[in-house]
Amino acid sequence: MKRILTSETPSQKGNKVKISGWVETRRDHGKIVFFDLRDREGIVQTVFSSGEPAAYEAAQAVKSEWVVEIEGMVQERPEKLKNPNLATGAIEISATKLTVLGEAKTLPIPIDTDGYEIGEEARLKYRYLDLRRKRLHQNIKARNEVIHFIREFLRKKDFIEIETPIITKSTPEGARDYVIPSRLYPGKFYALPQSPQQYKQLLQIAGFERYFQIARCFRDEDPRADRQPEFTQLDLEMSFVEQEDVMALTEELLIDLVKTLYPKKEIQEIPFPRLTYQEAMAKYETDRPDIRKDQKNPDLLAFCWVVDFPFFEKSEQGGWTFTHNPFSAPKPEYMQNLMEQKNIGTILTTQYDIVLNGLEVGGGSIRNHTSEALEKVFEIMGYKKERIQENFGHMLQAFSYGAPPHGGIAPGLDRLISLLQGEPTIREVIAFPKTGDSRDLMMNSPSELAENQLRELHLRVQKEK
Amino acid sequence: MKRILTSETPSQKGNKVKISGWVETRRDHGKIVFFDLRDREGIVQTVFSSGEPAAYEAAQAVKSEWVVEIEGMVQERPEKLKNPNLATGAIEISATKLTVLGEAKTLPIPIDTDGYEIGEEARLKYRYLDLRRKRLHQNIKARNEVIHFIREFLRKKDFIEIETPIITKSTPEGARDYVIPSRLYPGKFYALPQSPQQYKQLLQIAGFERYFQIARCFRDEDPRADRQPEFTQLDLEMSFVEQEDVMALTEELLIDLVKTLYPKKEIQEIPFPRLTYQEAMAKYETDRPDIRKDQKNPDLLAFCWVVDFPFFEKSEQGGWTFTHNPFSAPKPEYMQNLMEQKNIGTILTTQYDIVLNGLEVGGGSIRNHTSEALEKVFEIMGYKKERIQENFGHMLQAFSYGAPPHGGIAPGLDRLISLLQGEPTIREVIAFPKTGDSRDLMMNSPSELAENQLRELHLRVQKEK
Repeated sequence: MKRILTSETPSQKGNKVKISGWVETRRDHGKIVFFDLRDREGIVQTVFSSGEPAAYEAAQAVKSEWVVEIEGMVQERPEKLKNPNLATGAIEISATKLTVLGEAKTLPIPIDTDGYEIGEEARLKYRYLDLRRKRLHQNIKARNEVIHFIREFLRKKDFIEIETPIITKSTPEGARDYVIPSRLYPGKFYALPQSPQQYKQLLQIAGFERYFQIARCFRDEDPRADRQPEFTQLDLEMSFVEQEDVMALTEELLIDLVKTLYPKKEIQEIPFPRLTYQEAMAKYETDRPDIRKDQKNPDLLAFCWVVDFPFFEKSEQGGWTFTHNPFSAPKPEYMQNLMEQKNIGTILTTQYDIVLNGLEVGGGSIRNHTSEALEKVFEIMGYKKERIQENFGHMLQAFSYGAPPHGGIAPGLDRLISLLQGEPTIREVIAFPKTGDSRDLMMNSPSELAENQLRELHLRVQKEK
Repeated sequence: MKRILTSETPSQKGNKVKISGWVETRRDHGKIVFFDLRDREGIVQTVFSSGEPAAYEAAQAVKSEWVVEIEGMVQERPEKLKNPNLATGAIEISATKLTVLGEAKTLPIPIDTDGYEIGEEARLKYRYLDLRRKRLHQNIKARNEVIHFIREFLRKKDFIEIETPIITKSTPEGARDYVIPSRLYPGKFYALPQSPQQYKQLLQIAGFERYFQIARCFRDEDPRADRQPEFTQLDLEMSFVEQEDVMALTEELLIDLVKTLYPKKEIQEIPFPRLTYQEAMAKYETDRPDIRKDQKNPDLLAFCWVVDFPFFEKSEQGGWTFTHNPFSAPKPEYMQNLMEQKNIGTILTTQYDIVLNGLEVGGGSIRNHTSEALEKVFEIMGYKKERIQENFGHMLQAFSYGAPPHGGIAPGLDRLISLLQGEPTIREVIAFPKTGDSRDLMMNSPSELAENQLRELHLRVQKEK
C-alpha cells in the first residue's frame, strides 16, 4: 500500500490507508489508545483498540516522537467528537497495523510550545528538534515561498539568475573578510565574498543586462545579538537604467510580494514615501526612520525610501571615506565635483535605501561605469595609484572595454522575511543559525584542526599570551 | 523615449525607437556607416547617413564594443538586402541620434568566435569579455533554464528549498576541507561544506520530509583539468522512501528535463538501464560505463544506473573504509551482517549512481536512520568511541530522537549542464570558473594577506624551506 499524507485522509472515508510520521501525543484510555500522528502536512487522530490486538499490543510501547507507520480504516468520528479546528477533525484512523520506524528518547526541549521561552543555547544545540515546532516549520516554509515569489517575479521581468563564486579574493575595503588559506599556494588566501558586488558589475560588462541571485554573503564582524556570519540577500543588477528604474522595480516587487503572500498585512503608504537623508535626520534623527503611524498594529508595514545621502564622510583618520559603497556614482549634477575633487563633503550619491518599520531591508545605487570616475573615488579616499591598481585594477580595466550604465540593489532576505513573519530576530527564519557570537552549537564549530591539516596549509597558530 | 530591445524593433516598422547596446560590428561605406548593435536579445542593423549630420558625425568616432544609445526610424530593408537568417533581418534603424555611453579599448581577445581557439589563461583573465561571446551567453542562459526547470519540477512534487550553512565544521572524512580561521576563537576553524549531507539528514529528523537545495559544495582536492574548488549540486533528501522511490523521482526529473529543454536530444533507453557494480566492472571495466550505441551522435544521451556497490573496501592502511558514503544504509538483506560485523567485504550498499555517456552525474543512497547502525559503520572503519563521539556525536544523538527512514541523491549540475550543452568542460557552463589549479586569474586570487589580518586571525605563515 502506498503511504498517503494526513491531509489526504479526510477524502478516504471508509477506505484502508497507510500513513507515516511522528507520534505527536499519546493518550491511553485503557482499552483504547489514541495517537495524534504528525507528518509534514499536519496531524490526524489514530485509534488503537483491543479489537485489533496486534496493533493494540504494538502501540503499548510507543512514546511521543517515535516514528511509526500505521495502517487502518478512515472512519467518520461521532458528531460530538468532531474537532472543527483541525483539518482532519471529522475523521480518525482505526489502526489495524503499527510498525515502529524509529524510536525516540525523551526530547531535551519541548516542541509543542512556540519556543520563545526556551534558552537559545538549548534551541540551537538541538536545532533539528527545535525545527519540529509548528512556528519554525511555518517560518521555513514561508521563507521558501517568499524566495520562490521573488524568483518568479524577476524571471517574468527578463532577469536571469547567475551563480558567482564563494571562493574569491580578499579586499581590504568595507567589513572584515572571512579568509581561506590555500594549500597549493603557501602563504596565500582566498576570501568569502561580503557580497557579489564586483561580480554582478562584471556581469553587466559581460552583457547580461538583468542579473539576480539569491546570494550568500559573509562578514567577519564583531558579535551582536541579531547578526549572523553569513546571510542571504537578493542581489540584483541592471544595465541601461537610472535610479528611478531600480527603485520602481524594487517597489513593485515588494508590493506584489506582500499583497500576494501576506494579504492580511497593510502597507501604510503606496507609493512608498521618500525622504532625503537630511529630512530623515532632521525629523527622526536616524537614516532608518520608523514612520509607522500606529506602532501597535502588528500587521502594519511602513516602507519608505531614504535617498540623497552624502557620498563621502570624514574618516577617523581625518581623510575621506565612502558612506555606503565605493562603486556608487554621484548624482549626475555632482559628477563634475567628483571629477574635480571639489566640495567633496557636499557631493550626494545615487544611493537609495529601503527601510521597513525602522529597519534597513536593502540598499543600492547607480554605479560609476567609467574607470575615470571610479578611480577618482579612490583618489579622494587617499589611495595611492599602486593600491588602486592592486585592489581594483581588474575593475578599472573591465570598465575600459565598454561598460554600460548600470545599477542595482540588494535587499537582505533574512531581515525582510523575519519582519513579514512577525519574528523578533533573523534566527527565527534561518534553518541553522549560529549564536550571536558566531558559534554553531549543534555541530560544535569552530573547532581545532588536526596538526597535519595546519601543516598542509602552511600555518601555525599564534595565540597571544 | 523608453528604450526597447533589438528583438522588439521588427514590430515597430515606421516608428521612432530608442535602442542601446554594444557596437558589434562597424562598416564604413563613406557617406553611410553601418553598425550592428547588440543587446541581450540579439542584434539589429543601424544606418548613419549624411542626411542626419549630427548622428553621422557622432558615429565617426565610435569603434567596436563601444556602448551607445541610438534613436532612429525603423525602416523595412529593400527586398534583396533582407537577411532571413537574422530575427531583425527585414528591417534596419535609420539613426537620427547617437549617444556614447561607454568607450572601449581594443579587446585583448576576440569575442566573435566560439573561443575554443583562445588560450585559457586569456579567457579566464578577461572572463567578463569572454562571457560576451554568443556561445557562453547561451550556456549561462541554458544553465538558468535547467536550474529553473529543476526547481519547478521539485516544487510540484511538494519539495521545499532550504538553505544550509556555508560556514560550518571541519570533518576529517572524505575529501579535504577548505577551512576558515576564526578571529573570535583563537586557534579554531570553521570549514566549507563538502556537501550539505549532514544538514539535509538533520532536516529529515526535523520533519521536512522533502528537502532540496541548489547547493554550493567545496573540496580542496589536488589539481585536475576539469575540477573546480567549488561546484553546484542539486542536493535532495526525502523521508519515508526506499531506494526505488528516489531513483524513480530522479529518472522522471531527468527525462522531463531533457524532453522539455532539449527536445532534439535522444535518450538512448527509457527506463534507464540498470547495471550492478559487478556487471559494470565485468563488461566495461569501470563503474561509470559509457553505454552509447552510437558514439558519433552528439545528440545521444545514454543514461544508466549503477547499483549494488560494495559498502566497504580495504583502505591503504589495511583496514576497512567506505566506498561512497558512511551515512549510507546497507541493502536490507545485509543489515544483519553490518550489525554483526560479519563478511564485511560482501556487504552491499543502497548506493545508486546515475551515469551519463560515461560520466557520473550524481549519486545517492538510503541512509542508516538508527544510531546503532551508523555507529557500526564507524566501528567497522576502526574508529574509536571517542572519535566517533567527537566527529559524529551530534548525528548519533539526533537519530536517537525519532528519525524517519530517509534517502536522497545529489546530481552534479555543472557536469550535467555541460553534457546537455555539448561542452567539453564544466568551465564552459560556469560564469566565473577558476583554472584547473584553483587560481582566479581575473581577481588574482589567492593572494597574500596584510600582516594585521594574519595577526587578527592568530596565525603565522610557515613556509617550508
